[in-house]
Amino acid sequence: MRNTQLPYGTTNLLHSFALDHYETEFGARLDDVKVAYETYGTLNSYGTNAILLCHALTGDAHAADGNGRSGWWGPLIGPHRAIDTNRYFVVCTNVIGGCAGTTGPASKMSDDVTVYGSHFPVITIRDMVRVQFPLLKQLGIKKLHAVLGGSMGGMQALEWPIIYPDFVERAVVIAANPAFTAMGLAYNEVMRRAIVSDLNYLDGDYANAGKFPEDGMRLARMIGMITYRTAQLFDERFGRQFTSGNSFDPEVGRYLRHQGNKFMERFDPESYLTLIRAMDLHDIGRGRGGYHAAYQKIAAELLWIGIRDDLLYPPKQIQLAVNEAKTSGVDVTYAEIDSVLGHDAFLLEFEQLTDLIDPFLHAENLDERAL
Amino acid sequence: MRNTQLPYGTTNLLHSFALDHYETEFGARLDDVKVAYETYGTLNSYGTNAILLCHALTGDAHAADGNGRSGWWGPLIGPHRAIDTNRYFVVCTNVIGGCAGTTGPASKMSDDVTVYGSHFPVITIRDMVRVQFPLLKQLGIKKLHAVLGGSMGGMQALEWPIIYPDFVERAVVIAANPAFTAMGLAYNEVMRRAIVSDLNYLDGDYANAGKFPEDGMRLARMIGMITYRTAQLFDERFGRQFTSGNSFDPEVGRYLRHQGNKFMERFDPESYLTLIRAMDLHDIGRGRGGYHAAYQKIAAELLWIGIRDDLLYPPKQIQLAVNEAKTSGVDVTYAEIDSVLGHDAFLLEFEQLTDLIDPFLHAENLDERAL
Repeated sequence: MRNTQLPYGTTNLLHSFALDHYETEFGARLDDVKVAYETYGTLNSYGTNAILLCHALTGDAHAADGNGRSGWWGPLIGPHRAIDTNRYFVVCTNVIGGCAGTTGPASKMSDDVTVYGSHFPVITIRDMVRVQFPLLKQLGIKKLHAVLGGSMGGMQALEWPIIYPDFVERAVVIAANPAFTAMGLAYNEVMRRAIVSDLNYLDGDYANAGKFPEDGMRLARMIGMITYRTAQLFDERFGRQFTSGNSFDPEVGRYLRHQGNKFMERFDPESYLTLIRAMDLHDIGRGRGGYHAAYQKIAAELLWIGIRDDLLYPPKQIQLAVNEAKTSGVDVTYAEIDSVLGHDAFLLEFEQLTDLIDPFLHAENLDERAL
Repeated sequence: MRNTQLPYGTTNLLHSFALDHYETEFGARLDDVKVAYETYGTLNSYGTNAILLCHALTGDAHAADGNGRSGWWGPLIGPHRAIDTNRYFVVCTNVIGGCAGTTGPASKMSDDVTVYGSHFPVITIRDMVRVQFPLLKQLGIKKLHAVLGGSMGGMQALEWPIIYPDFVERAVVIAANPAFTAMGLAYNEVMRRAIVSDLNYLDGDYANAGKFPEDGMRLARMIGMITYRTAQLFDERFGRQFTSGNSFDPEVGRYLRHQGNKFMERFDPESYLTLIRAMDLHDIGRGRGGYHAAYQKIAAELLWIGIRDDLLYPPKQIQLAVNEAKTSGVDVTYAEIDSVLGHDAFLLEFEQLTDLIDPFLHAENLDERAL
């Protein structure tokens, strides 16, 4: 935890909102959908100073520091920070299909005994957006001043102004493409295969059988970690060091195993599979007549941020998307984070993120309008 | 198979040579070490027109086409080809630790019943080189006109003129570094973990138990295949296509599983682990006082080839190595293969390889010297 005080004004840590039912994009019905969320700061009387933060694959609703735990964007959120809690009412929810309070594969079904497991339906990025919308309405939000997210969160941040063009004024899309690429699909396939071929996976119903696919989860996380970082970082941090006591065990391997072991303690395998499938299916053009038609729906101002040496979302691809969006009439700016960290820079390069996000959010003087 | 004739002059397909014993770099003793090899063409009376080809991780001694099967460098080997069998005596062996005729973990131990499995010792790239040397001597080779190899074969091609400076006149090192990088170690770690955590692996003794770690091998190959190709290639070949009949199964995933399934039929898991460990340990500076001292041993002329967008051996790293080698007095030239294929270009871009290798090998007029 970075702050010992919680200076966010009115702060709600991990509350829950419930939808009576929700029908997914692919037509499955889920009853009693719970949405875990946190808020920081105060909504103004017009309901127009709200900012929604969308978490990435393994994130949750805990965006700001608090309750003895660092938030995934802790240094960005607080008074006089890029996401200024003196000015904005900040909301972050755990996505549907997740495993940190919102209904997902690890949740109990209506009998309150059986865990969904393999019975949880396919979820899309659009479902994540649509499930959050009624919560924001209930909180009294009339318009989102901005929606922000990186990676899987960036996919949501891009879908928001397409699905709800009148509701979103600004979107910050970080390290995400308009559609998931073949290379992304390839990495997701090996991570999926790692989990489903673990004998303890039991076709997704491990939880009801009291089992857990440990080896598969460890391996999936190890593969993921490689894609989130860069060769340069691994060279600088680990080089060719081998662990003491075993001259054949490289330090970078020990690091990856350690990351895999930590991950197992905090994430549900079927939730992981559900979310990477949602990423697989991410494609703003699907069912809309392609990218151009999708971009044409956007009224919001966009800031689209790429990260140098991002293996999964190379800046070149994002620049191409930005140009296509511009051609389709979107008011979009491209910016780039210069970092040796690779993809994970969106969770770590807080100074550069502040320099980009702060001026974009303050484009308009909110103070004169309300509060 | 590409050729229906075998126009290599005297051709020996998969013969075997035996060493009474061999002591590995790390001090293990192996008795009765068999070395499977092929030769194409005829050795001249001086024993100076020999070319050694070193195979990569999953290759074998079958470099040229023949016996109804394509060789891994088939189009490069033959009369009037880059590796001209009218001029050169070409040798290719299966490496120690391999599983295609040379002694490795899948070989029987001295009791002729038990398979080595977990009892096979750690092997290094240097061991691969040292095991080949007595075979070349016995074949009557006085000097290698050249040694060539890509990837793990490139590591051997680089070690050859360091270990036997008086024996090697030229070396062509393709898609390989002076030492394996942290990113390479990371990918090898997840492939290793995939195999060893398969319940059928049985700590390496699956063969004696009549088992086979199928899931682990499939997964390791899938991960490997991703690193051998490029995002651009996957985008062009598979894009966001999903398999017919299952709208959630991406084509690129089906392709990777197919590659994984094919691989299981032809490769031994413990051999795979032995060879990737040898790659982990590849470091020309080890025990020699660093790179500079290692390079200073080289008398041979070097052609060092990088491949654009090679994920594991980026051209930038190879160029850096080439500069270091030059500073250390090595007569070395850098060249680059321009390909969308990524690392695997060293097994596929035959035209570019011909354009680079042919003039380098013909630098001197062999015909005037002998035959």
